[in-house]
Amino acid sequence: MTSLINRNSEGVFIIAATPFDDTGAIDYDSTDRMVDFYLETGVSGMTILGIMGEAPKMAGDEAQSFASHVIKRVNGRVPVVVGVSAAGLDNMARLSATAMDAGAGGVMVAPQPGMATETKLKGYMAQVCAALKDTPICFQDYPQTTSVQVSVETILSLTVDHPQIVMLKHEDWPGLTKLSRVRAETGTADVPRLSILTGNSALFLAQEMQRGADGAMTGFAYPEMLVQVVARHKAGDVDGAEDLFDAYLPMVRYEQQLGLGLAIRKEVLRRRGVIASNKVRAPGPALTARDHEELTRLMARLEKRLGELN
Amino acid sequence: MTSLINRNSEGVFIIAATPFDDTGAIDYDSTDRMVDFYLETGVSGMTILGIMGEAPKMAGDEAQSFASHVIKRVNGRVPVVVGVSAAGLDNMARLSATAMDAGAGGVMVAPQPGMATETKLKGYMAQVCAALKDTPICFQDYPQTTSVQVSVETILSLTVDHPQIVMLKHEDWPGLTKLSRVRAETGTADVPRLSILTGNSALFLAQEMQRGADGAMTGFAYPEMLVQVVARHKAGDVDGAEDLFDAYLPMVRYEQQLGLGLAIRKEVLRRRGVIASNKVRAPGPALTARDHEELTRLMARLEKRLGELN
Amino acid sequence: MTSLINRNSEGVFIIAATPFDDTGAIDYDSTDRMVDFYLETGVSGMTILGIMGEAPKMAGDEAQSFASHVIKRVNGRVPVVVGVSAAGLDNMARLSATAMDAGAGGVMVAPQPGMATETKLKGYMAQVCAALKDTPICFQDYPQTTSVQVSVETILSLTVDHPQIVMLKHEDWPGLTKLSRVRAETGTADVPRLSILTGNSALFLAQEMQRGADGAMTGFAYPEMLVQVVARHKAGDVDGAEDLFDAYLPMVRYEQQLGLGLAIRKEVLRRRGVIASNKVRAPGPALTARDHEELTRLMARLEKRLGELN
Amino acid sequence: MTSLINRNSEGVFIIAATPFDDTGAIDYDSTDRMVDFYLETGVSGMTILGIMGEAPKMAGDEAQSFASHVIKRVNGRVPVVVGVSAAGLDNMARLSATAMDAGAGGVMVAPQPGMATETKLKGYMAQVCAALKDTPICFQDYPQTTSVQVSVETILSLTVDHPQIVMLKHEDWPGLTKLSRVRAETGTADVPRLSILTGNSALFLAQEMQRGADGAMTGFAYPEMLVQVVARHKAGDVDGAEDLFDAYLPMVRYEQQLGLGLAIRKEVLRRRGVIASNKVRAPGPALTARDHEELTRLMARLEKRLGELN
Repeated sequence: MTSLINRNSEGVFIIAATPFDDTGAIDYDSTDRMVDFYLETGVSGMTILGIMGEAPKMAGDEAQSFASHVIKRVNGRVPVVVGVSAAGLDNMARLSATAMDAGAGGVMVAPQPGMATETKLKGYMAQVCAALKDTPICFQDYPQTTSVQVSVETILSLTVDHPQIVMLKHEDWPGLTKLSRVRAETGTADVPRLSILTGNSALFLAQEMQRGADGAMTGFAYPEMLVQVVARHKAGDVDGAEDLFDAYLPMVRYEQQLGLGLAIRKEVLRRRGVIASNKVRAPGPALTARDHEELTRLMARLEKRLGELN
Repeated sequence: MTSLINRNSEGVFIIAATPFDDTGAIDYDSTDRMVDFYLETGVSGMTILGIMGEAPKMAGDEAQSFASHVIKRVNGRVPVVVGVSAAGLDNMARLSATAMDAGAGGVMVAPQPGMATETKLKGYMAQVCAALKDTPICFQDYPQTTSVQVSVETILSLTVDHPQIVMLKHEDWPGLTKLSRVRAETGTADVPRLSILTGNSALFLAQEMQRGADGAMTGFAYPEMLVQVVARHKAGDVDGAEDLFDAYLPMVRYEQQLGLGLAIRKEVLRRRGVIASNKVRAPGPALTARDHEELTRLMARLEKRLGELN
Repeated sequence: MTSLINRNSEGVFIIAATPFDDTGAIDYDSTDRMVDFYLETGVSGMTILGIMGEAPKMAGDEAQSFASHVIKRVNGRVPVVVGVSAAGLDNMARLSATAMDAGAGGVMVAPQPGMATETKLKGYMAQVCAALKDTPICFQDYPQTTSVQVSVETILSLTVDHPQIVMLKHEDWPGLTKLSRVRAETGTADVPRLSILTGNSALFLAQEMQRGADGAMTGFAYPEMLVQVVARHKAGDVDGAEDLFDAYLPMVRYEQQLGLGLAIRKEVLRRRGVIASNKVRAPGPALTARDHEELTRLMARLEKRLGELN
Repeated sequence: MTSLINRNSEGVFIIAATPFDDTGAIDYDSTDRMVDFYLETGVSGMTILGIMGEAPKMAGDEAQSFASHVIKRVNGRVPVVVGVSAAGLDNMARLSATAMDAGAGGVMVAPQPGMATETKLKGYMAQVCAALKDTPICFQDYPQTTSVQVSVETILSLTVDHPQIVMLKHEDWPGLTKLSRVRAETGTADVPRLSILTGNSALFLAQEMQRGADGAMTGFAYPEMLVQVVARHKAGDVDGAEDLFDAYLPMVRYEQQLGLGLAIRKEVLRRRGVIASNKVRAPGPALTARDHEELTRLMARLEKRLGELN
């Protein structure tokens, strides 16, 4: 049974990497291990083929195969959200249909560069919704990569106009006030509720939970922290959630290096035994020897700090 | 008697250069000749200290002095619009007040970079209007330099909300449909009329007049063409207007080279005996020997073509 | 026999549209007519799947099929250059290999956004050259869409370092001085010759030929003008070339509307009986009724002007 | 006695805010308190009128007055660096000369937007150096706001060519590898040493010190942390330095919100009794009630954490 994302979805939707072997081919063994690893940490969902997930470097058929494989491995335990952002609606609709047929729980769409007025963006999202039929959509608000600034008013308007836009991946920056406003101004008499998951590498996760986020959708390589912070917060242990978060913050901060962060995350997953190779497709970032040493140091310091906490 | 710009302003508001001598100091003799030259060509207004007018390279007191000098020389014969765009409202308000006290006909304001949602832009323009009190404003819609995309809906909203926003300097690109819509959707029961003057180096002047522009606000170094095209058009000679425009189009196209265009315009004005030096303040573009030859050729071809037309 | 592009390639390489039917599917009948039409106008080459050619909106297999179809139809009469710019080198190499196997004459590559220093760009192009093996490359210098500024020094360096980079699609803007410098500083004792074809919708074609361009690579819907201007120029009739160009300039200027230009070109080709539909894939520009009238007027004025010239 | 910045400058050069009263006028009493506060925390230098220091919102004479006032108050105890970045070289040279005459220790210059090739940037910096005569320059490498990407090679070249460029304000992001390379490739037989102070709100200060930075130049509202981290590091207590840094990291992260960070910093300085008002000039960010609560919480958590550390 597939579960679909909806306006009340919550918890941690981990952004999955796409594991490659050293030749750059998709590594399905690592993919299976990664899926299992994520599920064991207690995530509530999984998001694949995101902006940082090397999707633009995969061929169309590769993306479809990868999506189908992950969905099959997850086997309905949590919803899988598939990133389908594309320059053309045809390609977007094709990948979305394939993924939903395979059992995805929804798709994620970021505005294309150029949709830079409210009028254009609303027109574009209406086209997207029509092309994707009833597929539930997570709207990704990520101006740092799309160059499209989205106001709270526009988000509210999209929420009202399109029942299928059920989730916001919130990663505008700085964006804390925006999050507070979207939380306060949705779920009202006039505007339906919207599931709000935060991105931006979780750099403000504790604050965002305190401001009403439903969880996180990001790719931090220690998903167990994300899961526990969200869980503690929901259990009312606000300080405990933030204490745990702060212990990981040096690493969160380290992974949040635009572009390079992907290479760091893959390396951490490799060191943790999740994937076999830290390969990133070309052109892409690579870690220097100095970066490796630094990462070793940061991982050791994290272990030490976690020990102190307990 | 100062005349102020208003919702029915029309004709050619020439964008004036700021003449410097070879040392980079303001050349007031050339300024006087330039003002007289513009008035003799029949312009309906003059705009100084625009985005391309080297205003960001002038000290605050220089800008005030230059504005006062031009306004005094014009002596009320046509309205002088003063560009006051600035990073801070204080500086903007100061220059605006000085200019209006000296007899300016209004000010021109472009959105600051970063005002990239309708909400932000409307909030910003509300702040601007408050800071400038009742000063009539020409709103400059120029995304190529401001990075702020403005929808027709936003323009209508600004027109309704702020009686002092009376004029649009239209230079979005491509922007012909936008112009048609602003023309059709202002001057209605719900939205006041807006004077629309077109910029973008007049590259589409004939088409823009046909779509309802009230005139042009640009800095072409042959203002007599702009004046005649607008006049012919208003007299009903649509084809004649376009014939004349097309004869100048090779030169219009040549001046419309972003950045470099300023150096070309100053050189043409110099060759025409209007200003003494083609000096552009550093860092700025400079013409090569090859550019000079090319310009000579283009000016000669223009003369020849004008001869054929008559 | 396939002919490959090389350092002496010259003439007009027309940028081909991708004809779709009204449903958005590739229209191969129109494609055949379009290929024949281009060849009849006397073009020296054809470039498909360019930045403005809707390539980003085609599926990978569609792009391969379209490329193969065009190459087969051209049947070796002129070289076909295939745009292969892509976010990942794998996708780029795959399309390039398929196209070259099918008989393409070379590929066109624009830098990816982010390659914004000389060091990064040179590193990137070295990766590209390695991935594309010996395939001849046309380097597209188009900062308005790539955001990558390329200096003359970088172009020279790429020319020296990579024998397979044989052609420059010059469309920096303003770029006339850059063209003069690349012309003067290649084909020297130290730097190999580079074929320079100009883009930017040919807005400066006459000037660019006078400055030493080898021809044009752009998508103007009246390719016969491009062919004749280049031919007259090479025959020494510099004034005649420019006279003809200037007659078309109002239309050149009209087609050079970023984004919208594609819809205009497809509509002109449709009106000229070349393709069956002006369909542009979503999201994309569409012509209004007013645009259609305006185009009708401009096409009629062009006919009239051409009559006067002869 | 004025001390000038030089190739061996080290420690913390605190980026100073410009204190305003609630009307927006410069508050010189607060300025004096702020200067004294900074000096008491042990900073090695002070930088005023930086990109985030509201300099673009000050009138030219205000900037000169503020600079002179601060320099007089500092009274030679540490060098004062004055931000002089400006659209035109004339304004830059004027402010620089005034500041140096008043006793500044050097100036800071960021490339103007548009200097987007190595050739252009090197040409621009040559013009800057000529205009500023022998004034020692801190080159600010801050692509997030200037849009100018600068390679290590370019930094080395500037270091070799211009003896007066003695310091790098390093705030490219991600930039750790860049810092390692600049450190390794300066102070060699071929390239003079360069003082490297890191910016980017100190988000990576511990890592940057470990990679060889000479200190920090940023505006964190707890300068005592910056001073102690740098001091501990130089004393060989690398772990202790990083422990202290990590304790402050939640607050460092909170202040590093582009744009909003300025309002947060001013509010923290106000709460700490340093300045009288958190006023930011319009248009500018403002803290919501929710932001104030959040800041209160974060400040309390910081106190608690510091208690645990000791």
